[in-house]
Amino acid sequence: MLTDADRRAVARHPLFVRLEPRDRERLLEASSARIYRRGELLFAAGDSAHAFFVALSGWVVLYRLSAQGERVVLRVVRRPESFAEAAALGLASYPAWGEAASEARVLAVPGTAYRRLLLASPETGLQVIAELSRKLAHLVRELEQRQARTTTERVARFLAEAAADGEGPALVLPVEKSLLAARLGMTPESFSRALARLKREGAIRERSGRIELLDRDRLRVAGGCR
Amino acid sequence: MLTDADRRAVARHPLFVRLEPRDRERLLEASSARIYRRGELLFAAGDSAHAFFVALSGWVVLYRLSAQGERVVLRVVRRPESFAEAAALGLASYPAWGEAASEARVLAVPGTAYRRLLLASPETGLQVIAELSRKLAHLVRELEQRQARTTTERVARFLAEAAADGEGPALVLPVEKSLLAARLGMTPESFSRALARLKREGAIRERSGRIELLDRDRLRVAGGCR
Repeated sequence: MLTDADRRAVARHPLFVRLEPRDRERLLEASSARIYRRGELLFAAGDSAHAFFVALSGWVVLYRLSAQGERVVLRVVRRPESFAEAAALGLASYPAWGEAASEARVLAVPGTAYRRLLLASPETGLQVIAELSRKLAHLVRELEQRQARTTTERVARFLAEAAADGEGPALVLPVEKSLLAARLGMTPESFSRALARLKREGAIRERSGRIELLDRDRLRVAGGCR
Repeated sequence: MLTDADRRAVARHPLFVRLEPRDRERLLEASSARIYRRGELLFAAGDSAHAFFVALSGWVVLYRLSAQGERVVLRVVRRPESFAEAAALGLASYPAWGEAASEARVLAVPGTAYRRLLLASPETGLQVIAELSRKLAHLVRELEQRQARTTTERVARFLAEAAADGEGPALVLPVEKSLLAARLGMTPESFSRALARLKREGAIRERSGRIELLDRDRLRVAGGCR
């Protein structure tokens, strides 16, 4: 039922990567891959949450229904994403509807089997937590680095946010520029060039490592903030 | 030692938010907030990993040393981020150096205390895993929606990636446009306008829900892909 490619994809998933290979195998044996037709329900809101899912191919949409009975799309999921973990691991019911938006192959992992594994080996749970934390930190960094595209935009946004943290109009850069550059995912040279550009545009003024924000609105606009 | 604002920040952190309030309080009592001077080491690579950390204020840099003895910056951390969880929860040693890059207040959470809590209550561990999964899914979505800024860029990138998944030059959109639009964080109208723009530019051709990729390079460029 599971192809080798499926197994590899699941084995790399943060919820599975730190499991003992033997435990992972057993979990996969308890799980089932199924093809859903487009429009077919995986679960309805209120159903007891017997499993969480990993998308293997195709698309799945998660939605709620509004008071007027209209769909409110929460997520559109595709390989290799998992979904409904929170419901299945908390033993609650599904809080939303899950439906195949195209023909979709989906792995259902019984919540009880995953729970049993982690209740029997809380050490494994700690490993999973460590892995998820690592992944989360990585994504936070990625997000920060990509949220504006040019180096000037990234620097402008960083300064606007630092100022919004309530440090007043004069901002003392607390850290060497090379580290701020690293935080923003650019070279120190690019960081300096971006500062120079913002100075020329009249958004900031710099004096011995102290940066004054002359024009917050300009800075926010330069940073693509709304 | 911890201000009320610190406590609130820690309580919202994904590693702590699902803990029982009483357990969280006990964990905070076992933890210690300390002010590090700029340049002061929190830990050295190879030190046994007694704690993981939450930045409360200021900046912390994590780095390795190259064979030539040069710093290779891994992360620059600030409030409310945590770091070194993987080391502390796995009971290994720190794989990198941690140093205050500015004056920094940092909460050290003893790995043993967190481990003890989760070994005593694996149920809590499952809750933490569920929370981290939820947060991870949220960030994946955010990242996807923000990685290109204009709707046309996002659509172009999505099509280029779908094509790179090996579906050949003709791409059959498997899902209603409204769902693809939701996945990409835009309205169906914006999605249609973006498709129209890419058609005008000669990057794609559309026939009854079937999209042909005429010019992958142009698509990749339009999507800001390298």
